[in-house]
Amino acid sequence: MDAIDVIRAKRDGGVLSPAQIDWAVDAYTRGAIAEEQMSALAMAILLNGMTRAEVARWTEAMIRSGERMDWSALDRPTTDKHSTGGVGDKITLPLAPLVAACGAAVPQLSGRGLGHTGGTLDKLESIPGWRASLSNAEMLDVLRSAGAVICAAGSGLAPADRKLYALRDVTGTVESIPLIASSIMSKKIAEGTGALVLDVKVGSGAFMKTVENARELAETMVAIGTDHGLRTVALLTAMDRPLGNAVGNAVEVAESVEVLAGGGPSDVVELTLTLAREMLDAAGITGKDPADALKDGSAMDVWRRMITAQGGDPDAPLPTARETHTVTAPASGVPAGPARRTRSRSARA
Amino acid sequence: MDAIDVIRAKRDGGVLSPAQIDWAVDAYTRGAIAEEQMSALAMAILLNGMTRAEVARWTEAMIRSGERMDWSALDRPTTDKHSTGGVGDKITLPLAPLVAACGAAVPQLSGRGLGHTGGTLDKLESIPGWRASLSNAEMLDVLRSAGAVICAAGSGLAPADRKLYALRDVTGTVESIPLIASSIMSKKIAEGTGALVLDVKVGSGAFMKTVENARELAETMVAIGTDHGLRTVALLTAMDRPLGNAVGNAVEVAESVEVLAGGGPSDVVELTLTLAREMLDAAGITGKDPADALKDGSAMDVWRRMITAQGGDPDAPLPTARETHTVTAPASGVPAGPARRTRSRSARA
Repeated sequence: MDAIDVIRAKRDGGVLSPAQIDWAVDAYTRGAIAEEQMSALAMAILLNGMTRAEVARWTEAMIRSGERMDWSALDRPTTDKHSTGGVGDKITLPLAPLVAACGAAVPQLSGRGLGHTGGTLDKLESIPGWRASLSNAEMLDVLRSAGAVICAAGSGLAPADRKLYALRDVTGTVESIPLIASSIMSKKIAEGTGALVLDVKVGSGAFMKTVENARELAETMVAIGTDHGLRTVALLTAMDRPLGNAVGNAVEVAESVEVLAGGGPSDVVELTLTLAREMLDAAGITGKDPADALKDGSAMDVWRRMITAQGGDPDAPLPTARETHTVTAPASGVPAGPARRTRSRSARA
Repeated sequence: MDAIDVIRAKRDGGVLSPAQIDWAVDAYTRGAIAEEQMSALAMAILLNGMTRAEVARWTEAMIRSGERMDWSALDRPTTDKHSTGGVGDKITLPLAPLVAACGAAVPQLSGRGLGHTGGTLDKLESIPGWRASLSNAEMLDVLRSAGAVICAAGSGLAPADRKLYALRDVTGTVESIPLIASSIMSKKIAEGTGALVLDVKVGSGAFMKTVENARELAETMVAIGTDHGLRTVALLTAMDRPLGNAVGNAVEVAESVEVLAGGGPSDVVELTLTLAREMLDAAGITGKDPADALKDGSAMDVWRRMITAQGGDPDAPLPTARETHTVTAPASGVPAGPARRTRSRSARA
């Protein structure tokens, strides 16, 4: 098999064979296909697309490039959520402990900031002592003791995706629905969750600007999950304005804690509850209303156990911004609504 | 300026600005754009094309990446030929000395084998002692003493093209008319020839399989030449069967010498004379029939002076094949015509 033949086949609008896909992903992972060859292939995929069968096989090959985690030792069903990201999207922080408080186990492998969106791990690292990197044994311990864990994907998980993602990031080949879908789903399937809810953001603050693109991405990911026996649900949610009032690492943690305490901005609370219900439903857990777990403090209890189990101090003061100013909405050009207070954290803080 | 912005602009079907093109070619040449970024851009160019203005600017930027040669010290007009290559195309070998014998100077910078086609330099290197690499001063000396020189392009000539060509070769991005045209023309314009005849091959043995593609390539190159004040003419010639009887380095030299001696296969003689007349016409030289220079031995004299000036021995026996067999045409499936004798040179020879 030859890299140039595979590139040419996709360049000329052809469908890659399963053998070509398996070989290309494997050869790239072990360095037998050079970076400049894979970037040409990625651009050809971006411009000429992939069929559903090609995307499924590509995802499968990326999963097989590494380990596949197994949570069968747990006595509860696993369920997870992935968001395609947006400004102020801190939903994972209150959501994972909330769903755990309702009886599921949530093995959340999260990421860093991407483009203009913040990263869940970056936000949590503003909590003094909190560690993003856990071994698989540590993950299992946290899941057992707290019911939820939010941590970085280990290097053994879909290494093909890790390498390919870094390449796409510098070669203008991020915005390909087949490549986005296979990247997300390879990690979530390898992560070993039993159910998955996808929060596909759409709007001016999202990677997908139109409902059509967001729907195509959602359908592609649901198809991949379904093909792999993973119960997968996707929601398209608006990202035309920041989610909640806070944008910034520490301030988003603070806002998440407000939600867990039964308060917080209504849009964050609403989306957290909607996703929690979908995650519980996908995991087959019935008869629990997550709104109750916010009210009775049980979600907050899980949060504190989870943060503590990962080395963090849930009572420690969060870093504060060196400079603070208040932005008020201009008189026109934004939808009607209450003025949003934005606290900015100085880059030097 | 940012590489990803330039890649995205072309990926999304846009037209690159002169500033973007100048920056991209320069940044790539000095290593500020990585190989994997340029290959993504090359694939986007291949799939989305370039306008005439973009191709002209891209060529200009590649010329400016290196030196531009100057033959104004010569007392005769310069003229050159470029062929897009085909099986058995050894025309440069008899053509350069023939045109020099008619009064022009021919500064032929040639290349190595490409894909299934042989390289002029590889063929000439079968002559014992002959050197492909000359300094600019040596080139001028050979041009003064013999009237023609055939040698490798120095590393100072269009280094952007040298680097880009090596990248395209391994990334499936060779077959782009804008990139082929700018590659050829940047070298020929930097070479400093005053006139240029392009032999664009078309047919099953050529890179351009259809007349439409060959015509598009020819028109693109003539436009580039014209935009740079270079008198440029293009001929579309058939490459559906090997040119002449010999295919292989040493045997093609032998066949070229037959042509210079007044013999040789009629197709080689005919194409050599056609191109010679175009080159002389483009150089403004009139009243000379190149057929006479083949008959009277003056073209052979130039050949011998040129080979000798480049260290070669025109009288030394050429290497012979370790194995010889004769291929006769099958009864059907080939056009009517005399059986062609093909001598193959063993790869071990």
